[in-house]
Amino acid sequence: MDSTRSGIALVGFDADDTLWKSQDYFDAAQAEFERIVAAYVDLDDAGARLYAVEKRNLALFGYGVKGMVLSMVEAAVEITDARISAADLHRIVELGKALLRHPVELLPGVREAVACVAADLPVVLITKGDLFHQEAKVRDSGLSDLFRRIEIVSEKDTRTYARLFAEFGIAPAQFLMVGNSLRSDIAPVLELGGWGVHVPYHVTWAHEAEADVRSGAERMRSIPTLDRLPLAVRELTALARS
Amino acid sequence: MDSTRSGIALVGFDADDTLWKSQDYFDAAQAEFERIVAAYVDLDDAGARLYAVEKRNLALFGYGVKGMVLSMVEAAVEITDARISAADLHRIVELGKALLRHPVELLPGVREAVACVAADLPVVLITKGDLFHQEAKVRDSGLSDLFRRIEIVSEKDTRTYARLFAEFGIAPAQFLMVGNSLRSDIAPVLELGGWGVHVPYHVTWAHEAEADVRSGAERMRSIPTLDRLPLAVRELTALARS
Repeated sequence: MDSTRSGIALVGFDADDTLWKSQDYFDAAQAEFERIVAAYVDLDDAGARLYAVEKRNLALFGYGVKGMVLSMVEAAVEITDARISAADLHRIVELGKALLRHPVELLPGVREAVACVAADLPVVLITKGDLFHQEAKVRDSGLSDLFRRIEIVSEKDTRTYARLFAEFGIAPAQFLMVGNSLRSDIAPVLELGGWGVHVPYHVTWAHEAEADVRSGAERMRSIPTLDRLPLAVRELTALARS
Repeated sequence: MDSTRSGIALVGFDADDTLWKSQDYFDAAQAEFERIVAAYVDLDDAGARLYAVEKRNLALFGYGVKGMVLSMVEAAVEITDARISAADLHRIVELGKALLRHPVELLPGVREAVACVAADLPVVLITKGDLFHQEAKVRDSGLSDLFRRIEIVSEKDTRTYARLFAEFGIAPAQFLMVGNSLRSDIAPVLELGGWGVHVPYHVTWAHEAEADVRSGAERMRSIPTLDRLPLAVRELTALARS
């Protein structure tokens, strides 16, 4: 691509909770985790204690189901003072296996919205988390034919986006990212000088909610659902050319 | 790259047990797993039963430490008929965390061998497994400056190599792969028409040993250690041009 051309030349899409349901499954697994440990201890902060363990392990495990399940096992042992049974710890592992197996459920209007944008501009998928699980979900989604490239990364920060822009051969100002996470999809892209369309999801993992869009808010739009995306992209494209 | 030029145009390197130690750590963790379950049951096939669980879960977990640890937890519950204590299951999770933390230990002569090949031909790293852990190891290895690209893939089969060749813009016959696994590094590349240098490691995971180099053995060389690599690459390069 010509990195000196003005205007938006490439649109990136987040996957989990932007194209398909994800956090709901994690929340359901966490509720089940809380029910399992509730048989041993009476506390109302099991969820917060699990999040503390997950956060502590993030630098070692990265994102994704498998790391979360290992943190759940660790948190269950901690919370119950190692009184939890092997059978219940095995139930926690089974929760994880069920999460890895759940079918991909596209959010309403996703295929149409992505296809509409893809008719005008090349689109890529940029998702973080477990390589194996994300590949399986992309395959099951039936959307892979729409995307020119599929990038599965371990973290979505300015460093990762800068590396991807170099690989794509574009300047940051030529890139627009669509996603539900201000922290991972919008803030780093705006910071680098790119464009963002925020599509909030009804639930957000505590970690992804920790964000602050300090600069570049004028290069961002928020839309309630993806059916508004083509309009938002056209509007930002016009702005980028002006 | 020009995909019609004859001769080898790109050299790929595997990472685990080709550039740095890996299987030794897994074997030590497995020995520790066997010691933990031996406190509950007297059996001599704990390792084989663990491998059966790992193999069963491979389609769901993929490769890497986190999936292995989840399989270890599951196998420990199965093997002990759920009699294993939460503290011992937690020790198994800690085994995994230690595996993820171990420093990267380069095999002898690796930097020199890679640098020598890289002086003549572009080199790329192609490794499978957990994205997050592999990225951390590449970073810690101090070798990333030598590689033009680093590809972390979920499986190393003919499909993956064919996709990579398309992304690299080369024909299979222009590619040479260096690695310790006949199954993952050599057989699929030879099958596609490429070249291979096999560098056996002193230990091999049972799964990687399941391979059959049926075709293209004339396009492969075996060397005992990486210091023989530059010579083997020159020899195969000459053969590829003839």
